[in-house]
Amino acid sequence: MERKVHLTPSGRALVTLIPGDGIGPEVVSAARRVVEAAGAKIEWEERAAGASVFTQGIASGVPADTIESVRKTRVVLKGPLATPVGFGEKSANVTLRKLFETYGNIRPVREFPGVRTPYSGRGVDLVVVRENVEDLYAGIEHMETPGVAQCLKLISRKGSEKIIRLAFEVALAEGRRRVHCATKANIMKLTEGLMKRTFEAVAREYPQVEAQHIIVDNCAHQLVKKPEQFDVIVTTNMNGDILSDLTSALIGGLGFAPSANIGAEVAIFEAVHGSAPKYAGRNVINPTAMMLSAVLMLRHVGEMDAAMAIEQGVLGALEDGVLTRDVVGDAGAASTTAFTDAVIQRLGRKPKQAAVRQYRPLNLPRVSSDPDFVKPKKRRVVGVDVFVETSLPVEQLGRSVEELVAASPVELKMVESRGTKIYPATGAMTDTVDHYRCRLVQRSAEGDLSEGQVLEVVRSIGAKHRWMHVEKLNEFDGIPGFTKAQGED
Amino acid sequence: MERKVHLTPSGRALVTLIPGDGIGPEVVSAARRVVEAAGAKIEWEERAAGASVFTQGIASGVPADTIESVRKTRVVLKGPLATPVGFGEKSANVTLRKLFETYGNIRPVREFPGVRTPYSGRGVDLVVVRENVEDLYAGIEHMETPGVAQCLKLISRKGSEKIIRLAFEVALAEGRRRVHCATKANIMKLTEGLMKRTFEAVAREYPQVEAQHIIVDNCAHQLVKKPEQFDVIVTTNMNGDILSDLTSALIGGLGFAPSANIGAEVAIFEAVHGSAPKYAGRNVINPTAMMLSAVLMLRHVGEMDAAMAIEQGVLGALEDGVLTRDVVGDAGAASTTAFTDAVIQRLGRKPKQAAVRQYRPLNLPRVSSDPDFVKPKKRRVVGVDVFVETSLPVEQLGRSVEELVAASPVELKMVESRGTKIYPATGAMTDTVDHYRCRLVQRSAEGDLSEGQVLEVVRSIGAKHRWMHVEKLNEFDGIPGFTKAQGED
Repeated sequence: MERKVHLTPSGRALVTLIPGDGIGPEVVSAARRVVEAAGAKIEWEERAAGASVFTQGIASGVPADTIESVRKTRVVLKGPLATPVGFGEKSANVTLRKLFETYGNIRPVREFPGVRTPYSGRGVDLVVVRENVEDLYAGIEHMETPGVAQCLKLISRKGSEKIIRLAFEVALAEGRRRVHCATKANIMKLTEGLMKRTFEAVAREYPQVEAQHIIVDNCAHQLVKKPEQFDVIVTTNMNGDILSDLTSALIGGLGFAPSANIGAEVAIFEAVHGSAPKYAGRNVINPTAMMLSAVLMLRHVGEMDAAMAIEQGVLGALEDGVLTRDVVGDAGAASTTAFTDAVIQRLGRKPKQAAVRQYRPLNLPRVSSDPDFVKPKKRRVVGVDVFVETSLPVEQLGRSVEELVAASPVELKMVESRGTKIYPATGAMTDTVDHYRCRLVQRSAEGDLSEGQVLEVVRSIGAKHRWMHVEKLNEFDGIPGFTKAQGED
Repeated sequence: MERKVHLTPSGRALVTLIPGDGIGPEVVSAARRVVEAAGAKIEWEERAAGASVFTQGIASGVPADTIESVRKTRVVLKGPLATPVGFGEKSANVTLRKLFETYGNIRPVREFPGVRTPYSGRGVDLVVVRENVEDLYAGIEHMETPGVAQCLKLISRKGSEKIIRLAFEVALAEGRRRVHCATKANIMKLTEGLMKRTFEAVAREYPQVEAQHIIVDNCAHQLVKKPEQFDVIVTTNMNGDILSDLTSALIGGLGFAPSANIGAEVAIFEAVHGSAPKYAGRNVINPTAMMLSAVLMLRHVGEMDAAMAIEQGVLGALEDGVLTRDVVGDAGAASTTAFTDAVIQRLGRKPKQAAVRQYRPLNLPRVSSDPDFVKPKKRRVVGVDVFVETSLPVEQLGRSVEELVAASPVELKMVESRGTKIYPATGAMTDTVDHYRCRLVQRSAEGDLSEGQVLEVVRSIGAKHRWMHVEKLNEFDGIPGFTKAQGED
């Protein structure tokens, strides 16, 4: 897919530059200096976001002229943004990612010369590719009862396909041999399972890359035990949040963790670390993460040589023992500007020891933008789950619901509490909360519940019990679109 | 709270012993030998579960006489259980945990002498206390549309209170100074936030223990960077699954990872590792995890001295270089029985170097079993979220819903796609799926939507659009029981 880049009249790629908050301006300035020294054909359009914007009363933390700039340039290099206490329910970082649907969060980590960790010498060099839009991060939450909260975990086939294709393309662009997909499909067969099944399907189109599924908890275990076995790890949003932060600790911390947020239209490059206001203006922060984010940005706009030169410069400076406070403590630490100078002196010089990977431009995957990405041939509504709040004993609730639907086309199959069937009784010693799910299924094995029938079921239960949530039970192409409770036949 | 133990006529605690599958019988036999050699006042009632039970056609993997035994003894020591391919949708492990509501999963890890890891010498010694019943593990999943899957993440105040109190009691029983609560409350303010707020409330009752909240991704980062800073970590089910498997890798792997599953009525003790059928009958497996699970079991039934003697024996054997295949490879490895003999020889002997913690009996928390654990004074229904499947452009959907509810007591506040508001338009470049949420709120700031009004809203939208999911919007004691979408005012 063609890269979306805005070229200036002089043929340079225009990049929206957001200095950000706290130590942001210092590390962004360091990154800007090395990009310019490397001779990259870049022009900057500087824009604001974050704390200063919130305090002006813009609740999103991102002003209109920043949004306008990003819509034009399609490429952003940004420093960390802060949300001042009392302003904004959502962070400006999240606003930018959501506004521009940057669905893919790319988080490379590698061992750096001179940066000692418990894993030094093992050659850790991997990329976490994290889905960045859906999953629990949609943030759709409801108090189902006064004491029971719910968040919706949403995983789509389209979202899964986009992130998985991106992961395989990252593997190809970086000459990597293996992609692991980390899910909890053994427990969440529909949601995490959708990611796993999509992975297995897409993997067949990339026979040159080894594809392997791994249970996410085992992945965390293996990342600590033997991180050098991993190359690319693709995963859902929440899992990826945890795994990617885990991996950055393997190689020396957030000072060395760059990231790219890739969308079909826009890409945002940023260091993973925060704005560290305590260190702002003190010229002590490690700018490596920001410089390497700029390297990812340069590759995105096709400046492969400048990207390579900067990566070599960073590795060279580290090899020569130019190390910042986060690595060596206060004594003998290079300042932010001294480290930047050292990188500039070594631009494009091959490091003595450290290997530098060869990169090809990343081929952004094309995935249909049809909202109805999956189109079944047949479908029917075979039942309805009605979630009820009650302090009645479950036997009373169950018998009451049975009576209420006695004359209807559905029957009560079971009542469950947080996933465990408790009516009809199974002998489970469940300590219930006031949140029950009544599963009502068609009496007939054929046909379809009508809209009116579904509403009538809800109405009749609602006449005696307080419901707060209803789910239709769909069957698509003969396959039930719902899982069974623990203990349900 | 009084411990539930079944005493035999000779005054011994009766324990249900489940040898389990694969290498299970070998490690369980090793644990049994050390328990008996330590002189613990235990009698065993051996029962089956797992593969052999599934293949007899019992879909839960747990036969009635095993359930009956557990109901009597209230204490289980069990080996790993396997689910043979093609049998059972749920594992027998999960069946046991669900049947007996073992809400608290306790996962201690500590550095062991002679077991080299990248963290050796740093004194890692921590306990993860994982909620074991609710969260995404309720497994309540629906295909919302043909291409969008949903899983419900459920967190209750009662469930949070139980696990958090358990964590503080673990800290007191083990003389630990600090409890971290790891959540993603910054993103999931209602669900993960409920865990965080409960932690902050309960912590005030334990002033002698330092209480600290940590964002779960940072917790994973810090566990890799500086694991020795942690003492007790309490967390939700999914987070805890990942974090506890991460921690077991810090100290030498699953061969050293015991666990307790604590319920108000029943407690189940087991090694974390699987049944490893490949090694079954070869006398090569490290029985430490199972022995240490027995140590946890002994403390649970009040056999503190026998527990201490075994822990000392294990540490002594490891200090003397008696190491199994998982630690030293095939050459020079002690067999399962040789390791067990070595432990028995050293029972109750103080290790030369390794510190052994002093334990007090764990005080099991008492939490009201009222299902309606939180009782608001005032409540009202202020709106309804209707989830719609459509391939219409969102402007068309939005205008249509506005027309459909024009004469009703509610108005369309917004339409969102996976958490981001897209109607009325905000400028977001969202790549939508065929799953939209229409948020309908009362026009009047006062009063309450009636049951009939809610159903009429659903009916009127359903007349033109396909809905699959409805959530009432509740307000409890004046506080909205629902979050806003990204971009919603």
